[in-house]
Amino acid sequence: MAIRRYLFDGKSMSREICTGSFWRDLLSELLATFMLVSVQCVLPLSWGRETGFSDAVMTGLGMGFIVTTMAWSLGDFGGAHMNPAVTFAMIISLKMSILRGIFYIIVQMAGGLAGAGFAYAITPSKYQDRLSATTLGHLVTPWQGYLTETWITCILVITIMGSTNPVRKVGAQMPPLFIGLAVSLCIFAAWNHTGASMNPARSFGPAVVKSVWKDHWVYWAGPFSGSTLAAIIYFAIFDRVDRPKIKDI
Amino acid sequence: MAIRRYLFDGKSMSREICTGSFWRDLLSELLATFMLVSVQCVLPLSWGRETGFSDAVMTGLGMGFIVTTMAWSLGDFGGAHMNPAVTFAMIISLKMSILRGIFYIIVQMAGGLAGAGFAYAITPSKYQDRLSATTLGHLVTPWQGYLTETWITCILVITIMGSTNPVRKVGAQMPPLFIGLAVSLCIFAAWNHTGASMNPARSFGPAVVKSVWKDHWVYWAGPFSGSTLAAIIYFAIFDRVDRPKIKDI
Amino acid sequence: MAIRRYLFDGKSMSREICTGSFWRDLLSELLATFMLVSVQCVLPLSWGRETGFSDAVMTGLGMGFIVTTMAWSLGDFGGAHMNPAVTFAMIISLKMSILRGIFYIIVQMAGGLAGAGFAYAITPSKYQDRLSATTLGHLVTPWQGYLTETWITCILVITIMGSTNPVRKVGAQMPPLFIGLAVSLCIFAAWNHTGASMNPARSFGPAVVKSVWKDHWVYWAGPFSGSTLAAIIYFAIFDRVDRPKIKDI
Amino acid sequence: MAIRRYLFDGKSMSREICTGSFWRDLLSELLATFMLVSVQCVLPLSWGRETGFSDAVMTGLGMGFIVTTMAWSLGDFGGAHMNPAVTFAMIISLKMSILRGIFYIIVQMAGGLAGAGFAYAITPSKYQDRLSATTLGHLVTPWQGYLTETWITCILVITIMGSTNPVRKVGAQMPPLFIGLAVSLCIFAAWNHTGASMNPARSFGPAVVKSVWKDHWVYWAGPFSGSTLAAIIYFAIFDRVDRPKIKDI
Repeated sequence: MAIRRYLFDGKSMSREICTGSFWRDLLSELLATFMLVSVQCVLPLSWGRETGFSDAVMTGLGMGFIVTTMAWSLGDFGGAHMNPAVTFAMIISLKMSILRGIFYIIVQMAGGLAGAGFAYAITPSKYQDRLSATTLGHLVTPWQGYLTETWITCILVITIMGSTNPVRKVGAQMPPLFIGLAVSLCIFAAWNHTGASMNPARSFGPAVVKSVWKDHWVYWAGPFSGSTLAAIIYFAIFDRVDRPKIKDI
Repeated sequence: MAIRRYLFDGKSMSREICTGSFWRDLLSELLATFMLVSVQCVLPLSWGRETGFSDAVMTGLGMGFIVTTMAWSLGDFGGAHMNPAVTFAMIISLKMSILRGIFYIIVQMAGGLAGAGFAYAITPSKYQDRLSATTLGHLVTPWQGYLTETWITCILVITIMGSTNPVRKVGAQMPPLFIGLAVSLCIFAAWNHTGASMNPARSFGPAVVKSVWKDHWVYWAGPFSGSTLAAIIYFAIFDRVDRPKIKDI
Repeated sequence: MAIRRYLFDGKSMSREICTGSFWRDLLSELLATFMLVSVQCVLPLSWGRETGFSDAVMTGLGMGFIVTTMAWSLGDFGGAHMNPAVTFAMIISLKMSILRGIFYIIVQMAGGLAGAGFAYAITPSKYQDRLSATTLGHLVTPWQGYLTETWITCILVITIMGSTNPVRKVGAQMPPLFIGLAVSLCIFAAWNHTGASMNPARSFGPAVVKSVWKDHWVYWAGPFSGSTLAAIIYFAIFDRVDRPKIKDI
Repeated sequence: MAIRRYLFDGKSMSREICTGSFWRDLLSELLATFMLVSVQCVLPLSWGRETGFSDAVMTGLGMGFIVTTMAWSLGDFGGAHMNPAVTFAMIISLKMSILRGIFYIIVQMAGGLAGAGFAYAITPSKYQDRLSATTLGHLVTPWQGYLTETWITCILVITIMGSTNPVRKVGAQMPPLFIGLAVSLCIFAAWNHTGASMNPARSFGPAVVKSVWKDHWVYWAGPFSGSTLAAIIYFAIFDRVDRPKIKDI
């Protein structure tokens, strides 16, 4: 997967910015995050119907599928992180230069905002609810929310790390498929606890549009903690000790 | 994927029509669109039960799966577009001759009509409802509907472009799988706004059979706008700037 | 996929019966059909809860997954047809000897019976309902039911033919995955019309155990008609005209 | 898949314990089982809503996805069995040394306990219910429960054996995908009978945390019987008789 190719490659940062592919990658990241957040904002709207488990099923599958399709289609260009926490994990794993990472995160926030704005524009105001802005579940404390977001983001980033690792024994086949499954399952798991964000850009967009800021720190601290933890576990421990060599089974 | 092979290949158009494979491809397109629309027409029928989110889940997954299976099984022959908007995107991306494209669209409309007719024949009239004819959701304005259809068709066609691009770094593995996921997620996302057509042939069939023409222009203008936008974004921008070369990761 | 290897290979039929692999293949077919039908019989039981769309989603996905997993795990041995209509399509496509086909069908019926019996044994009688024996939906006429079963079996067998065709342009990657998706979508589509059998062995097992014989002919005539139609369409038309050659895209 | 590489490789057991990769593998197994059981414990919680089929759909898909993603991401290191019954099947199939197996099972039980504890910590006590501790369905006798667990574990382990068999005709592509589908379908099938454990570590964790011990033996005897049965069927019968040779189809 293309996520792998953002090595800090010896070019000075200033020279990287002058390449056409740098700006194309940012445009790709902007588009992918726009699609991700616009889809997210309309998926769980109830339109006056009773909610239960099937809205969680629909939202979880839908979000997994948008991650899979965008990462598969646009991953060649910008990597299609669509998530500041993922970009941060790439930076601390030395797979991406800090400058590029900063640009990515800025573009992701802009894409998330635009996506939430688009969802606002196409949805009748009567049915907008919170436009999927994330809030803590009933009786869930902020620290429980923080732990929950850390936990699911850790699952997501371990899956990203494991799937895109080029030194795998079976090769890196179709990582976006597995990454999408991870997104779906994490949304299923944490749906009632925190709304299952895993992604500050996804939480920030609707929060701005609908002014929902309660416990918003949870959706920044949790994802960044989880992705840092995953990067440490995967690269500092698993990937370092007696790494198995590539072989086609 | 076979969608790729309809290059305008230098044969004059009149000679192309004389080949056996041309008519076989049309027959394949007819069959695939028939299956797509017949499945679509019966999937969301409620049979008197309460509807909610799970009918959207069932319809979205079912439509994604029929696109995947038909594109996988028949894509070798005609590309299995099953959608005039997709065929149009292929034409303006110079992947298909205009004459072939016109024949495809005619055949797709015929297949859609036949599919809706078949659904009409096998379903008791008490339970036919609108046979899945697309209408705008409650309070959704035509322009919101137009934007929604543009948006989801853009997601679909970007996925098609990205998946079938032969210059991908990881090769073009199983594009129909990802295209089907895009169909599913777009149906989940726009279910309440517009019924999530993305496809004039899919909207036209049941509209004729059940005479549902209100706001029907939305289901032509939206998909064509979305597929044009996607073709421009993908080929004029992403695929042109510093295209990464193929390499097996 | 292993479904492909049952070519009529020049051995006389009597010699084939004497090989160990013949009986191993039958045992594999018996086991796979047992698993298929036992899973089918318990999947849609309501256990006193309200039914709607989500039981269709669960049954459709579950049946697609059992077909995929059994065909993937046991397909190497016996092809894992698990379905007399599929075996019949293989015979008339000259991919399997008639004698082998007859043995397969006998074993599939036995596996279906045993599977239904097992489901009967593990389920409290209060919650057995019809053990998933197939009946026509409310107001559905037998001929509508026959057309419906023909239609969905045709979708299934076209997917099988297309996925296991060794002359595909992209190779025959993981056919059981696509075949499973076809099973799922056909169950979604025909759930209310006929219960979506596509498979005489699957309908026969619970019919015997629960003595449900009304309109039972539909579940034999429909699947066999559909698989015959699919074999004719695929091999007599599509696969014969200007067959594209294998090339890795 | 990495599950295959635990051959009893001639090293004496005591030497194996001294390698860094042995302890890394145990850590990987601990992490994977922790994630599996923590996700399991929160997935089916109702949070006061009505339950029905969609909670089964969500739990089944979610558990299938966590197995797929963890096995895909961490399988390179420890095999990611996450299940004592699977480890036992690997031992009796001579794919893993007894000593390694014992360590695995110890670590799996610890991971399951920790996962259940984590789920306890992040979930408001009002909504913890049984934290997904497995109990028999209404009117289901212990022996019916035992047969049910044996049956679904047999499906799971046959899928594992078939998917990871290196002598397959089509190569061993992405086994975790198929193993995850097996987990999902088995949960759908046995949801009402036993809660669909298939895994002593998954049943043990929440049983300790919530002190639910009624019929607990079923969740040990069933999975071990099922995995033993599957190993016997697959390796003693199918894999031994006229094993088809590898060829790329």
